[in-house]
Amino acid sequence: MAKLFFRYAAMNAGKSTALLQVAHNYEERGHRVRIFTARLDDRYGHGRVTSRLGPQREVEQFDEHTDFVALMDATPGIACILVDEAQFLSKPQVVQLHEMAHLRNLPAICYGLRTDFQGELFPGSATLLALADEMDEMKTICDCGRKATMNMRVDANNRKVTQGAQVEIGGNARYRSVCGRCFRQG
Amino acid sequence: MAKLFFRYAAMNAGKSTALLQVAHNYEERGHRVRIFTARLDDRYGHGRVTSRLGPQREVEQFDEHTDFVALMDATPGIACILVDEAQFLSKPQVVQLHEMAHLRNLPAICYGLRTDFQGELFPGSATLLALADEMDEMKTICDCGRKATMNMRVDANNRKVTQGAQVEIGGNARYRSVCGRCFRQG
Amino acid sequence: MAKLFFRYAAMNAGKSTALLQVAHNYEERGHRVRIFTARLDDRYGHGRVTSRLGPQREVEQFDEHTDFVALMDATPGIACILVDEAQFLSKPQVVQLHEMAHLRNLPAICYGLRTDFQGELFPGSATLLALADEMDEMKTICDCGRKATMNMRVDANNRKVTQGAQVEIGGNARYRSVCGRCFRQG
Amino acid sequence: MAKLFFRYAAMNAGKSTALLQVAHNYEERGHRVRIFTARLDDRYGHGRVTSRLGPQREVEQFDEHTDFVALMDATPGIACILVDEAQFLSKPQVVQLHEMAHLRNLPAICYGLRTDFQGELFPGSATLLALADEMDEMKTICDCGRKATMNMRVDANNRKVTQGAQVEIGGNARYRSVCGRCFRQG
Repeated sequence: MAKLFFRYAAMNAGKSTALLQVAHNYEERGHRVRIFTARLDDRYGHGRVTSRLGPQREVEQFDEHTDFVALMDATPGIACILVDEAQFLSKPQVVQLHEMAHLRNLPAICYGLRTDFQGELFPGSATLLALADEMDEMKTICDCGRKATMNMRVDANNRKVTQGAQVEIGGNARYRSVCGRCFRQG
Repeated sequence: MAKLFFRYAAMNAGKSTALLQVAHNYEERGHRVRIFTARLDDRYGHGRVTSRLGPQREVEQFDEHTDFVALMDATPGIACILVDEAQFLSKPQVVQLHEMAHLRNLPAICYGLRTDFQGELFPGSATLLALADEMDEMKTICDCGRKATMNMRVDANNRKVTQGAQVEIGGNARYRSVCGRCFRQG
Repeated sequence: MAKLFFRYAAMNAGKSTALLQVAHNYEERGHRVRIFTARLDDRYGHGRVTSRLGPQREVEQFDEHTDFVALMDATPGIACILVDEAQFLSKPQVVQLHEMAHLRNLPAICYGLRTDFQGELFPGSATLLALADEMDEMKTICDCGRKATMNMRVDANNRKVTQGAQVEIGGNARYRSVCGRCFRQG
Repeated sequence: MAKLFFRYAAMNAGKSTALLQVAHNYEERGHRVRIFTARLDDRYGHGRVTSRLGPQREVEQFDEHTDFVALMDATPGIACILVDEAQFLSKPQVVQLHEMAHLRNLPAICYGLRTDFQGELFPGSATLLALADEMDEMKTICDCGRKATMNMRVDANNRKVTQGAQVEIGGNARYRSVCGRCFRQG
């Protein structure tokens, strides 16, 4: 009966807060969870999920070498896998999570972005959007008041950037969560 | 274009956390919000919205005499009204929020329970379920692993209670968020 | 694992079409369903679910005396109960459907309106909104292009009617599915 | 205010029926729509959207050369674009639909599959899942009673097929809509 969940949102909607809340909900009922975030995410230090409201906790990291099946084999009794920055999962990793939900009854809840600053899918989000049993959008607003669905990279003058690497090393890129109209109008 | 939102959940799903996150999202973009909670909710002290993750903030209180239209007339420039414990709104108050969304373009996001320990609607939730433009369920789990949809009152021996007042003054009542099956099986 | 579903919409969204499609989906896989509609609904003749696209079929009728548990006891092997015009169910009938989903593993899918022409809940929809395990909105549009959420009764001059019986015998009342703004502006 | 919608489902959930209902809803209010289906879909003859309930209508066809912007420039006054078999749209075509929604206020509602028999995204669904402003799942059931999310190709003996072309010319392939568990267990 377990499922693979994908809870997607534009940046700064509150994905990490929601993940920490779900972990708390499991744990206060006496269940154990394992929490992962992407190794490349060093905004707040390695291996940490941080809510912009304040709470944070140390978590495990995944990179392209992480074998979720092997990890779970080694620790029976886990009630749920929680993944932050799930857009950075590889395709085989998402397939693993889907298989574990359906063949081992181990649910996974993945939080992540749908698309990058050019409106292109990340590898992890592409596979999650293909396979997730339940998809929920976490909503946040554009400055114009509409629902934000896109992540616009902006330069120092707040102008839309259209070229560049999908992920900027060093994390100096600045982003705005915008609606489809503001994204298309630049 | 504004809407009346109802985000409902069983107890302890993380409604207050979500409300605080949405307030944060508005405020970090430079928008002002007004936040209300029910006067009778004194779990954490009067006039406070408290996330079980830790964050909390002082907020305004509403009771059956609160006139939301008058309050908003007095403070132009509010981007959104946020209401916690919205099941305790009166029917005319929810109608006010619906009218302000549609006639003044002022969105309201209400967080609350659907039903009490007997599976009966609260007055506020009944009217929100009737009028809300968008309804979203915030999910949490039953001990059995299914989605929790009901709020079961239990006694000191953890047995289901079926009789009593809708709201217990003093707050000694204990509750478990359970799925439909566990609720019906008691 | 069965659930009670409520699929609600303003008038003329296509609820009856959707019900007929779901019945078809069950039946082409070799499952049996039982379909009910309200006895008072005589728009198309008694005991008929009619899609505005053309398809229709004879179905059973329910009224306030219908005992769904007794009916189901008499016919084992049903895969699903489908109810059209579910806003006219009584509160005990919805409780029966919820109990059968959770204690007998018999799913029920109910299609109906949320509110009447005054924005008030029907008895059946009130209880479905309280107890349904899954609620889905079927969308249709207002003349202004927004999503229609309300059912506005209009007179011969297309003006909003605000007084009268919840259900007009004879069915001469005319309705428009409108958004919250058009409803509030009349 | 227009949006790009993606309503996805496993096979035989009733996507074509839903599309015909939406077209009907627009047209009975006096609005004009344009309806497209994929040229390669010749299950029921070229250029036809067919509900398994019976209704069908002649519609326009799209293939990889279709320029939706040019088509819409040529016919002002359209209220909505409806696309069946939208998984076969190309990526630039979905970008066109997203741009027309946000820059010309022309909504598009696309119905299609998420994945093929190997669990891989189609080009059109990948881009719709990336860009759609609203995504809704149309539900149907697996033979085991769970929600069907996957499309399993089966051979003459009803065994799962894992190799082959994404689309079989001639349409002799047989499919079953199954849940994640039945898909993974084969």
